[in-house]
Amino acid sequence: MHQQLEFIMEADKLKDILRRSQVTGSKRRENSAEHSWHLGLMVFILQEYVKTPVDLNKVLSMVIFHDLVEIDAGDTFAYDDIGNQDKAAREEAAADRIFHLLPEQQAMHYKALWEEFETGETAEAKFALALDRLQPVLLNYYNEGRSWKVHQVRNDQVVERIRVLEQISEELWSYAVHLLEDAVHKGYLLP
Amino acid sequence: MHQQLEFIMEADKLKDILRRSQVTGSKRRENSAEHSWHLGLMVFILQEYVKTPVDLNKVLSMVIFHDLVEIDAGDTFAYDDIGNQDKAAREEAAADRIFHLLPEQQAMHYKALWEEFETGETAEAKFALALDRLQPVLLNYYNEGRSWKVHQVRNDQVVERIRVLEQISEELWSYAVHLLEDAVHKGYLLP
Repeated sequence: MHQQLEFIMEADKLKDILRRSQVTGSKRRENSAEHSWHLGLMVFILQEYVKTPVDLNKVLSMVIFHDLVEIDAGDTFAYDDIGNQDKAAREEAAADRIFHLLPEQQAMHYKALWEEFETGETAEAKFALALDRLQPVLLNYYNEGRSWKVHQVRNDQVVERIRVLEQISEELWSYAVHLLEDAVHKGYLLP
Repeated sequence: MHQQLEFIMEADKLKDILRRSQVTGSKRRENSAEHSWHLGLMVFILQEYVKTPVDLNKVLSMVIFHDLVEIDAGDTFAYDDIGNQDKAAREEAAADRIFHLLPEQQAMHYKALWEEFETGETAEAKFALALDRLQPVLLNYYNEGRSWKVHQVRNDQVVERIRVLEQISEELWSYAVHLLEDAVHKGYLLP
């Protein structure tokens, strides 16, 4: 139990990892812990739109645990080409250290779960990944493209990024594409 | 779907609701969204210690949704006797407004879930509640009693507050009581 509580407190550091997206209420960057919570909420609220049956519990564990590697590896901005070159290696090393703070069986379980999320092949991983991509789009749309403007992001980059949505739900995909068109129209996002 | 996405963005405001506990890494107060995420992680890691079988999915939805009422009602400090007098009424009104942003069926489901959590009678509610009480104890212990010292909190107050732990797990209860004794010994918490 001591090992598990040490892991729980190591996880506390995720609250200090800042993402590029900003929360809508105040002018500050979102951290990866509150982002992960937001994804958990979206799993429950949007589950009805997923085409194939998914193990909801597994999706929830994925969204809660998927960003822990950032404690060591930091958050890599989606549109940072250089940072993304060594992202996989940095995160793999981080996963090795962080999940192995847990007792052996849990360590193996959560590391495998993280790998499944990263690989993105199972229905659960696709749902979790799609929400992970959709959530910053919502934040940006609702705060008038604050981080899109700062980083001069284009519509085609975001569409490419959220394409996994199409595989899990035509309704969510279609909604998101329209939202992006509207964002371009409103000047939040470059065409 | 529009209603559901509006709810998801209303929930974003929970990231601006500050609790009394401080995160361990930086000297800032924790917000209720990252706190809720931390509880979700604890549900997965500590589930093996729960005496009675629980519906894990339900516990997860409770910890993710239980603090949304604070968007309107604010966070009420556990040891604030005056604030706690009208807490129930303020939170009831908040639940009415916030959950009813959702389509009717989801609104009823999540409002009932929140009520079940608040009533604290089912095994799921007790597990969620116990973690909600244990998490700030861990934060305080690991940051040398920062918010306990500010608010001059006593050991007997915390023991009373976390007593629900005893009903769900003797091991977690016993661990927490020893942690508190050690906190008193180290001067983090008043005897």
